[in-house]
Amino acid sequence: MAQLDDVLAKLDATRQPALDRLFELLRIKSVSTDSAYAGECVTAANWLSRHLEDLGFTASVRPTAGHPMVVAHSKSARRDVPHVLFYGHYDVQPPDPLELWTTPPFEPRIEEGRITARGAADDKGQLMTFIEACRAFRDSGGLPCDVSILLEGEEETGSPSLPAFLEANAKELTADLMLVCDTGMYNKTTPAITTMLRGLMMEEIIIKGADRDLHSGSFGGAAINPIRVLSRILADLHDDKGRVTLNNFYDGVDELTPEVAEQWRNLKFDGEAFLRSVGLSVPAGEAGRSVQEMIWSRPTAEVNGIIGGYTGKGAKTVLPSEASAKVSFRLVGRQNPLAIRETFRAFVKDHLPADCTVEFISHGAAPALQLPMTSEALTRTRRALQNEWGVEPVMIAMGGSIPIVGAFKRDLKMDALMVGFGLADDRIHSPNEKYELTSFQKGARSWARILSALAG
Amino acid sequence: MAQLDDVLAKLDATRQPALDRLFELLRIKSVSTDSAYAGECVTAANWLSRHLEDLGFTASVRPTAGHPMVVAHSKSARRDVPHVLFYGHYDVQPPDPLELWTTPPFEPRIEEGRITARGAADDKGQLMTFIEACRAFRDSGGLPCDVSILLEGEEETGSPSLPAFLEANAKELTADLMLVCDTGMYNKTTPAITTMLRGLMMEEIIIKGADRDLHSGSFGGAAINPIRVLSRILADLHDDKGRVTLNNFYDGVDELTPEVAEQWRNLKFDGEAFLRSVGLSVPAGEAGRSVQEMIWSRPTAEVNGIIGGYTGKGAKTVLPSEASAKVSFRLVGRQNPLAIRETFRAFVKDHLPADCTVEFISHGAAPALQLPMTSEALTRTRRALQNEWGVEPVMIAMGGSIPIVGAFKRDLKMDALMVGFGLADDRIHSPNEKYELTSFQKGARSWARILSALAG
Repeated sequence: MAQLDDVLAKLDATRQPALDRLFELLRIKSVSTDSAYAGECVTAANWLSRHLEDLGFTASVRPTAGHPMVVAHSKSARRDVPHVLFYGHYDVQPPDPLELWTTPPFEPRIEEGRITARGAADDKGQLMTFIEACRAFRDSGGLPCDVSILLEGEEETGSPSLPAFLEANAKELTADLMLVCDTGMYNKTTPAITTMLRGLMMEEIIIKGADRDLHSGSFGGAAINPIRVLSRILADLHDDKGRVTLNNFYDGVDELTPEVAEQWRNLKFDGEAFLRSVGLSVPAGEAGRSVQEMIWSRPTAEVNGIIGGYTGKGAKTVLPSEASAKVSFRLVGRQNPLAIRETFRAFVKDHLPADCTVEFISHGAAPALQLPMTSEALTRTRRALQNEWGVEPVMIAMGGSIPIVGAFKRDLKMDALMVGFGLADDRIHSPNEKYELTSFQKGARSWARILSALAG
Repeated sequence: MAQLDDVLAKLDATRQPALDRLFELLRIKSVSTDSAYAGECVTAANWLSRHLEDLGFTASVRPTAGHPMVVAHSKSARRDVPHVLFYGHYDVQPPDPLELWTTPPFEPRIEEGRITARGAADDKGQLMTFIEACRAFRDSGGLPCDVSILLEGEEETGSPSLPAFLEANAKELTADLMLVCDTGMYNKTTPAITTMLRGLMMEEIIIKGADRDLHSGSFGGAAINPIRVLSRILADLHDDKGRVTLNNFYDGVDELTPEVAEQWRNLKFDGEAFLRSVGLSVPAGEAGRSVQEMIWSRPTAEVNGIIGGYTGKGAKTVLPSEASAKVSFRLVGRQNPLAIRETFRAFVKDHLPADCTVEFISHGAAPALQLPMTSEALTRTRRALQNEWGVEPVMIAMGGSIPIVGAFKRDLKMDALMVGFGLADDRIHSPNEKYELTSFQKGARSWARILSALAG
């Protein structure tokens, strides 16, 4: 097995060829949303598979209904080591609007310590930090863990082929821990580990009353109005303290540990400025909670859309036969999305007057990611990052959901360790996307340290 | 002045020429909604104006932004008689679908005691009952009342030109009482007077939160959701007994008089069958009220439309910046539409959290019509109808609103006496529209009796 020092020295000694490899990948126009670039997506998948084969992985390009997956496996020389699955994606956003790029998006360049190209940060630069770390291990005696790699080509289009692929290849893809490199640092000198990610359960409800639209003069007062029923349901979802009223909704929602609470306080997140940036001033969530908690560690119920009756210009005296709403729940901790779906459906049914029926349409359910603070993997990763960057890494949360992480958690019961080296100003999805050279180089060194630390 | 018996005898003796005149009018294709027939609307207006001139009226065709109005005035030979304004409309619905007519819609015919043609009942046949009564008076010594007539050509398209016309000609059009012949009999042998008509106040409310649509992951929990605010407002509009919760909303809402309550009970209105006809079974209005009361004599608050956020297929994790609803109130008795508008606006504002604003768009306000049971005009009209039909006329209500009647009440402070001879099976707005010969002939006799009775 490689000694970590040798691996890090190897990475430092091969910076130029590593950059050359990244540039080769960045030149491939693997735009997933535009079918004109489907061939380039295949080219990128083949390029990655070939490189992983070179590193001693058993790699293959797997077809899907959309762009192909790359799957690779490598066994450590040691026994009884952890098995990790690394996830990344080789597809990129379209480069439009082209005229805003100062140099062509698929001709990567380095200037003032930054790599500029479409995909430099999201996600080619990030995924190559991990592959370069694997290469350095290979050149220095072998990997310290069993490593599997899954690279998809549809992340930017919502990963449509992923759920079926996970289901069909569950056994092959299951490992002890998932590693994801699609997140960011806290700032340019402070690494971060995203330990909490909210889950998401989405339901559409369609409330139906009379068997046709009615005239509100002839029937108003006597016939049930589904908009009124729906409004009552949605209004009753929260109490006057901003808490969600579903039975047992907060089961599995934990208070922050003192350590995390202390860390978050130290981040000095400015909730007022956050709200002010979108024209608001008053936190709308649970009474007594900070804005930071509201978006990072507390669950929500939101109505994302509602429609019913006449919605054109002017007025129409219609009493509609149906009304519908799209409702989503952001979940945290150990909240069970399927149990909450059932509770929500029961809540809706309990609100229905005799003459109303309801139809439910599910738009997906994925649990939250919450890496236990006591997790040994987390402890070791924190130490590894501290050693590389010289500062204590910050444990952060994301209010949004990363569907792929939720899917792995839901279907393969795997937790994810989310470490990335992107920065807030990387302009991902925008013109002149960039990735810091320090992110790329110290990122690779960080993964070397993390793999070594995970092996113990 | 004419003796009533002479007038009635005249009507009976001139049945064929009266039918000939109606048929002339029915042949004019005065479809108001289709600009291809604008010329036919002018033809109909001219035809009516000329006929009224023949009857000794001072008549004119008045241009509007749309189809013209016909206005006519005739003075009684007597002094100190009531001044009535008769309202009718000469425009008709399009005859489509043409293939469902058994004979062409603008070629009137009589078969089995029925006049079949587009407009036979709505409203050419009905308005000609009044004009034929006036003709018979003219031929028998003169009108017993001062009579003004207003005939519009845009009733089937929502009377867009009427409010401005009323305002511009308020003095000329104001009379002691309005007579409207656009309603129906209780059944083929029982006449009816519509003494109650609900008013209507319509407001659109637009609730605004953040200054842009937000991502429900990044902001959900911390940022106010206008759909949630709107749902609470709409839900709180009713209490759990189905009553509207606005302050003082029921001011001016009277209980039925014992006489009307008794009459309504005798109508044996089948509320269950009424609801069953549209797939419902449980009255949705105020607890303890009958379906008949709910649609005839009680006020309502209804949401006619609602929209906000993402309403396409599937799901989108948006937290919208605004949501809107169209709300309408059916009003009864002496409820004040403008006071209720203010109360509603205050209610909405009281429900707004600090970060939300609201925009109101008014879509009109008209009070209810409620002819006092003690009204002398009503007493006389009841007796006149009883004399013609041999049965006591039924006092009925309409849950809907007739905008023109509301406009006269609101702008000219005139009550309306609504008597018509249509039947439920007249197929107005549908193929093979018909009007009973008895409706036409006894209708004209009824107006003769009513005018005579009103003159005292």
